[in-house]
Amino acid sequence: MNAPTGLSAISPAKLLREQIRAGRHTTVTTGMAPGHLQANLVILPADWAEEFASFCAMNPKPCPLIARSGLGNPTLPSLGHDIDVRSDLPRYRVFRDGAAVSEETDITALWRDDLIAFALGCSYSFEAALLEAAIPIRHIEQGKKVCTYRTGLDTVPSGRLRGRMVVSMRNFTVPNAIRAIEITSRFPRVHGAPIHFGDPAAIGIADIDRPEFGGEPDIRSGEVPLFWACGVTPQAVIEAARPPFCITHKAGHMLITDRMNEEFREA
Amino acid sequence: MNAPTGLSAISPAKLLREQIRAGRHTTVTTGMAPGHLQANLVILPADWAEEFASFCAMNPKPCPLIARSGLGNPTLPSLGHDIDVRSDLPRYRVFRDGAAVSEETDITALWRDDLIAFALGCSYSFEAALLEAAIPIRHIEQGKKVCTYRTGLDTVPSGRLRGRMVVSMRNFTVPNAIRAIEITSRFPRVHGAPIHFGDPAAIGIADIDRPEFGGEPDIRSGEVPLFWACGVTPQAVIEAARPPFCITHKAGHMLITDRMNEEFREA
Repeated sequence: MNAPTGLSAISPAKLLREQIRAGRHTTVTTGMAPGHLQANLVILPADWAEEFASFCAMNPKPCPLIARSGLGNPTLPSLGHDIDVRSDLPRYRVFRDGAAVSEETDITALWRDDLIAFALGCSYSFEAALLEAAIPIRHIEQGKKVCTYRTGLDTVPSGRLRGRMVVSMRNFTVPNAIRAIEITSRFPRVHGAPIHFGDPAAIGIADIDRPEFGGEPDIRSGEVPLFWACGVTPQAVIEAARPPFCITHKAGHMLITDRMNEEFREA
Repeated sequence: MNAPTGLSAISPAKLLREQIRAGRHTTVTTGMAPGHLQANLVILPADWAEEFASFCAMNPKPCPLIARSGLGNPTLPSLGHDIDVRSDLPRYRVFRDGAAVSEETDITALWRDDLIAFALGCSYSFEAALLEAAIPIRHIEQGKKVCTYRTGLDTVPSGRLRGRMVVSMRNFTVPNAIRAIEITSRFPRVHGAPIHFGDPAAIGIADIDRPEFGGEPDIRSGEVPLFWACGVTPQAVIEAARPPFCITHKAGHMLITDRMNEEFREA
């Protein structure tokens, strides 16, 4: 049976966003709208925006900026014609003076004319490419969150924004590690190749069994840990800088876009 | 001063081949005709050729076949219009029944109507790409030969041709190792990405300080050894199979082609 002509043009991403906008999906977006790029969201007042854009430009691996809104404008047309960042993510975190003050499923009432929204690439895109290449990812197999760690690696500061890089870890056999480096290097706009592999201490991680976020890792004999620059980095940097107002997505509750992951694969 | 019109069209590769053909250059080709693809050469009688072509097809990482001649035809026009494999390499090794019997600078007198020539990609191409990316290669810096090792990894057999893979080793800091994997993965027709990194014992190398060929490695603290499938593999496999007749290039004395390394970089 063919879909009616009018519906066949509507993408799964658009349908999912409509569900989210209507408040009917308020949980994580992991694995949803397969193939579609999902994005991290950061919303800041205008007087912090230039510092943040500059921070992203100078730290493209942890902060791969893929779109930004105009001043006071909650749309991101390059990622989807109908996107309204005030309602199209399942869950938001609101920060005042660097402290998380609430979680929301809609921030329309909090929107202001001086806010600017930034969308950043997310590791879900390259994880999808790894799974397509039949490279198993342990934390996904086990239904756990990815392990992330604060490192001793400094980011390049931009005004009031400065701090250490946060990394996510995925462990592989050596042949799969080589293929994972090959594959993720083709996605420079969604964190790209890992920034380190092997000895955690070399990047200032004291104990790999104690991640900052996520469960205990399961690294087996002959496997090597690979560390990718992580989208938690800008959130940690912003928290530390304590802007008077900031809104981000809640971890795992991403912006679903109309763009396909494959569009972000480099030749 | 402009070059005369007639000469400007002649490539450095063609000029170098003419020197070699005339017997005026009989030493290694390392670093010569920069940017031009250099190739390994294997010449076999027709009744071994299909097995060898099949061996290359099934073992593309150690045996990246880039061209083959017609039966009894010593030209390789896809690599250079004027190439004559009987005279255009600086030095050859001649094998009878698997034993090296002589070294020659010209094999025209040994050519037969039943011979077929195979040209295989060579790591010089990806080493050039690494150096262009400012990734230092220790053995080149030190003017030594690359270290190669017999491994415990079986190749896929083809008729009488079978044996273990030979690998070459280059050591890097971890960030440079990641970049080296990224870069060499773009050159699948010249060995491609490494087949292993880290623990040598995992691929059957008992002592990394005792390579089969090349000098003692110089692996410093924080560096990791990367192992690439090596073009010595087909030579070792052929020697073990003891065909009645075979001619190869002498190590380091390669076929200079008119093709550019960049043509072999994949999108």
